Amino acid sequence: MRISELAERTGVPLPTLKFYVREGLLRGRATAPNQAVYDEDHVGRVRLIGALTGAAAMSLAQVRKVLDVLDEGSDPVTAMGRAVASMTPVTGHSSTHAAEAARMGIHVPEDYPAVEHLDAAVAAVRAAGLPWDEEIAARYIVPLRQMVAAELMPLADMDRGDAVTYAVLGTALYEPVILALRRLLHAELVIGRGAPEKS
Amino acid sequence: MRISELAERTGVPLPTLKFYVREGLLRGRATAPNQAVYDEDHVGRVRLIGALTGAAAMSLAQVRKVLDVLDEGSDPVTAMGRAVASMTPVTGHSSTHAAEAARMGIHVPEDYPAVEHLDAAVAAVRAAGLPWDEEIAARYIVPLRQMVAAELMPLADMDRGDAVTYAVLGTALYEPVILALRRLLHAELVIGRGAPEKS
Repeated sequence: MRISELAERTGVPLPTLKFYVREGLLRGRATAPNQAVYDEDHVGRVRLIGALTGAAAMSLAQVRKVLDVLDEGSDPVTAMGRAVASMTPVTGHSSTHAAEAARMGIHVPEDYPAVEHLDAAVAAVRAAGLPWDEEIAARYIVPLRQMVAAELMPLADMDRGDAVTYAVLGTALYEPVILALRRLLHAELVIGRGAPEKS
Repeated sequence: MRISELAERTGVPLPTLKFYVREGLLRGRATAPNQAVYDEDHVGRVRLIGALTGAAAMSLAQVRKVLDVLDEGSDPVTAMGRAVASMTPVTGHSSTHAAEAARMGIHVPEDYPAVEHLDAAVAAVRAAGLPWDEEIAARYIVPLRQMVAAELMPLADMDRGDAVTYAVLGTALYEPVILALRRLLHAELVIGRGAPEKS
């Protein structure tokens, strides 16, 4: 199909698609110097870009990195690490070298990108005067271990390509789901409990 | 103390502090038309702004909304809802009205901001071709209920002001911790398992 049809199929405006092409995020099969055709894979790719820039709130630069990781077909661990590195802009508090991951007994290579994300996140919690200690860490780690085990179960039955896609996209796209659910469950619990609502 | 001392105490550059003042995020006690003094509360406020713009990756406009919520002293539910509304830019997929929260049996008012966040997040998961059904939702809801119950436990012993601060800041600042931990636990599990790493 031509790019105008791709726009119709996906509901994404033509100028946006042309922008994706210029930015190298979308590449059709060339049929002439200034003409290209697109197929079902491109429909999927356009939806994926929309999903990553939408709810996952990624910048185009971050999306490009994630798409590169998907395209290059490395093993799932490397792919996941590279995708994680492209996410969450970590700024400001990353110089503490608190190595919280090691302190909590999480076994990952020291240079895995999320090690630094965790240190920065914990430093921000402390800087804001919120509590952080082993007991509080356990509040998060215990249920998250359960969640993560369930999330990775399907990987066992996937071939390598599907595993990479699932690992990379799952990392980015279930995150907003988790945050939204946590916010909702907070509200449900506080409202249901009628906690210190009245002055 | 003067603003230059506040800069020394907090390690935040003077031009940045002056910018906060101009933007109305920081307000000293005026001693003369062009002079103001600052105290320990301001040290805390500057650290808080740093924490919110740093690991929580909030824009100054979002930070302003969170600080307003803290300053106005409404009840915790209202405050939490307003803070949640200022977070996560939800774009692109929010028009589905899938009402996932209601479908999952989460009891919150229909107009609670995170209801729309969840719909958008689930729509993005689906748009990217990732699976979503009741069984998958349970993978997240079951451990999150456990996490949220533990998080809200301390609220019972807090007075109203502390409860609002904890609810508002806790929503924003533990989120990056949760995401970093999930990414680390994924890596730990995949590496430990030696899953489909080899080609």
